[in-house]
Amino acid sequence: MAEETFASVVVGESAGVQPLVRGPRPGDRLEDVDTPALILDLDAFEDNLRSMQALAESHGVALRPHGKAHKCPEIALQQVSLGARGICCQKVSEAVPFVQAGLSDILISNEVVGRQKLELLARLASRARLTVCVDHPDALRALSAALDAEHSAVDILVEVDIGQKRCGVQTHAQAIALADLAVRLPNVHFKGVQAYHGGVQHKRSFEDRQRAAKKGIKAAAGFVDALRRAGYACEIVSGGGTGSALFDAASGVFTELQPGSYAFMDGDYGAMDWGEVTDLRHALFLWASVMSTPAPGRAVLDVGLKSTTAESGLPQVAGHPALRCTALNDEHCIVTVDEPRASPALGEKLRLIPGHCDPTFNLHDEVVAVRKGVVEAVWPIAARGLSR
Amino acid sequence: MAEETFASVVVGESAGVQPLVRGPRPGDRLEDVDTPALILDLDAFEDNLRSMQALAESHGVALRPHGKAHKCPEIALQQVSLGARGICCQKVSEAVPFVQAGLSDILISNEVVGRQKLELLARLASRARLTVCVDHPDALRALSAALDAEHSAVDILVEVDIGQKRCGVQTHAQAIALADLAVRLPNVHFKGVQAYHGGVQHKRSFEDRQRAAKKGIKAAAGFVDALRRAGYACEIVSGGGTGSALFDAASGVFTELQPGSYAFMDGDYGAMDWGEVTDLRHALFLWASVMSTPAPGRAVLDVGLKSTTAESGLPQVAGHPALRCTALNDEHCIVTVDEPRASPALGEKLRLIPGHCDPTFNLHDEVVAVRKGVVEAVWPIAARGLSR
Repeated sequence: MAEETFASVVVGESAGVQPLVRGPRPGDRLEDVDTPALILDLDAFEDNLRSMQALAESHGVALRPHGKAHKCPEIALQQVSLGARGICCQKVSEAVPFVQAGLSDILISNEVVGRQKLELLARLASRARLTVCVDHPDALRALSAALDAEHSAVDILVEVDIGQKRCGVQTHAQAIALADLAVRLPNVHFKGVQAYHGGVQHKRSFEDRQRAAKKGIKAAAGFVDALRRAGYACEIVSGGGTGSALFDAASGVFTELQPGSYAFMDGDYGAMDWGEVTDLRHALFLWASVMSTPAPGRAVLDVGLKSTTAESGLPQVAGHPALRCTALNDEHCIVTVDEPRASPALGEKLRLIPGHCDPTFNLHDEVVAVRKGVVEAVWPIAARGLSR
Repeated sequence: MAEETFASVVVGESAGVQPLVRGPRPGDRLEDVDTPALILDLDAFEDNLRSMQALAESHGVALRPHGKAHKCPEIALQQVSLGARGICCQKVSEAVPFVQAGLSDILISNEVVGRQKLELLARLASRARLTVCVDHPDALRALSAALDAEHSAVDILVEVDIGQKRCGVQTHAQAIALADLAVRLPNVHFKGVQAYHGGVQHKRSFEDRQRAAKKGIKAAAGFVDALRRAGYACEIVSGGGTGSALFDAASGVFTELQPGSYAFMDGDYGAMDWGEVTDLRHALFLWASVMSTPAPGRAVLDVGLKSTTAESGLPQVAGHPALRCTALNDEHCIVTVDEPRASPALGEKLRLIPGHCDPTFNLHDEVVAVRKGVVEAVWPIAARGLSR
């Protein structure tokens, strides 16, 4: 076997070059796609994209979906083509493949600290319109200086803490001081605030989530008012996620929404009470094979913590209520069979609903886009692993 | 900016080509390595390799370290150069970069089910000596047939369940039936059994772990005896992990050990009671920066679930007892500061001990090998993401 051919086996698992064991291609039947694989049900996915776009438009707010959820430029391009203003990224290096793919308006929805990160940001800013969050005067000064070296500029949002207790300024005075500083520094333009509360997103009860979202909205409005009184109008108030989008869109405070998971609906979001107001559907699946049927009542799948994650709950077996994932090891998923007749056969393939979509995307090099059981496209998860 | 130069930013984060923001290189100070990065302390790592090799040799058993822990051929080559018989891989595709790097004796310590996987296995078997686990007659027949098409052959171990309740045959009769079948089929050579119990590895108390290991050893011995009485001598009895290695090595039952984490000592293993019998040290660290210091008592690091995992506990901050990781989000790690004087500065870099080394390696494209604060090598984690 020639070395070139042999080497292509590895590349071919993920990158779609002609491999010895070839990867999935358009026209293949899903049934023939090797496992583990990350599968996107295009019908459900496209419905989800349209639903959230329609929600934003019905309230006159912009949609800026989060690229950190999928790290896939093809998905971002579809979001923008349906009307999204741009996208968010959480890391500077994560933004690079999106800029390369033509995304021209990106909010780095996070603080950027460190010499190499700022140098990359300054270079990216000459290629796309970038907005960056800040919560500390030293970081803002370093950002301005790094941009100077590249003769580029960015818009900035002051990140304000509305209850998550993660990043963000704590007081109105701190927010105003950062706006003051931004006005005095070159290359950075104050545009408003980012107000995000991750904890609100995952409250399961509709009422609890609504109550928490309203509390966050009130806190965000307080920062916006204080800045206005100090002479700083917030052109942009950005925040919200899939769980709070409905409330944030209708708040009159937020001008743009940052949801990510809505396009995929992982197990965690699927378990939430959505009231009567959403029709988001599971669109993302982990494709798995039964690799062992060692005892009655137990099957073992060929997926584990290297294909999905467990911090938001174990995966669910789609369409098989009698099959329950009961453990996720590094490379194995244990399935407990509650009815003997439901036992899957050795080699049978099953669709799992991941507990948490963001870190699951980050484990895969490509997502296989499927419609009615046939592969329609294979999209690189180009920002996979880009965490700086 | 030329397109070629720009593209190299992305590649450069992981692959060491000349990037716009260049990756770490030998001779760099650790302090200058951008974050997140996976860091290997070579002094501790090499001591760990020697300790486990010495343990195996002192009991006359072979060491076959697990490649699934690190997915890094350079590390496997060091293990073999110190005396390891070969390595384990958990997946067929995972084995490819190890074979390419010259590893010539690999146990696929897992069942292999599915057409594409068997085709790849059959091709690999013409390049290296492979051993494969089986626990089902249909899988063994399919394996034999796939090897036939490539005119290759493998050794097989019958996987036996010694209490983990994952894969493996349940009864002595099933083990004997598989040995019987292997003898009748072409291209597969019965060599013995694999007996592994993951649950034993992580029991924190030395005594509990010893008791559980002895129970597993007794069960393994029962399978070996039953096979011998049926005419099948087990040349190989393979199993054990970092937590049970001491007991398995001394058992007189196991002929080879499969530990992986011993080389790195993650937080989970580090929290165990080792008695007086080990000097394994933490060698693997996640290098992280303070990206926000929003309030007294709280710092936020630029690492999260996309740089390490949480299923075996949150990371620990090495060398800073007053700093505790209290939450791990997708891209953020919240650090609670127990003493005001211990507050880290914005931009300060810290070493975290990952909770679980295997899935952490699988999130990174390279590991930065450091000695006394200076980068000595940057090794590709070549099997990262190869899960088929």
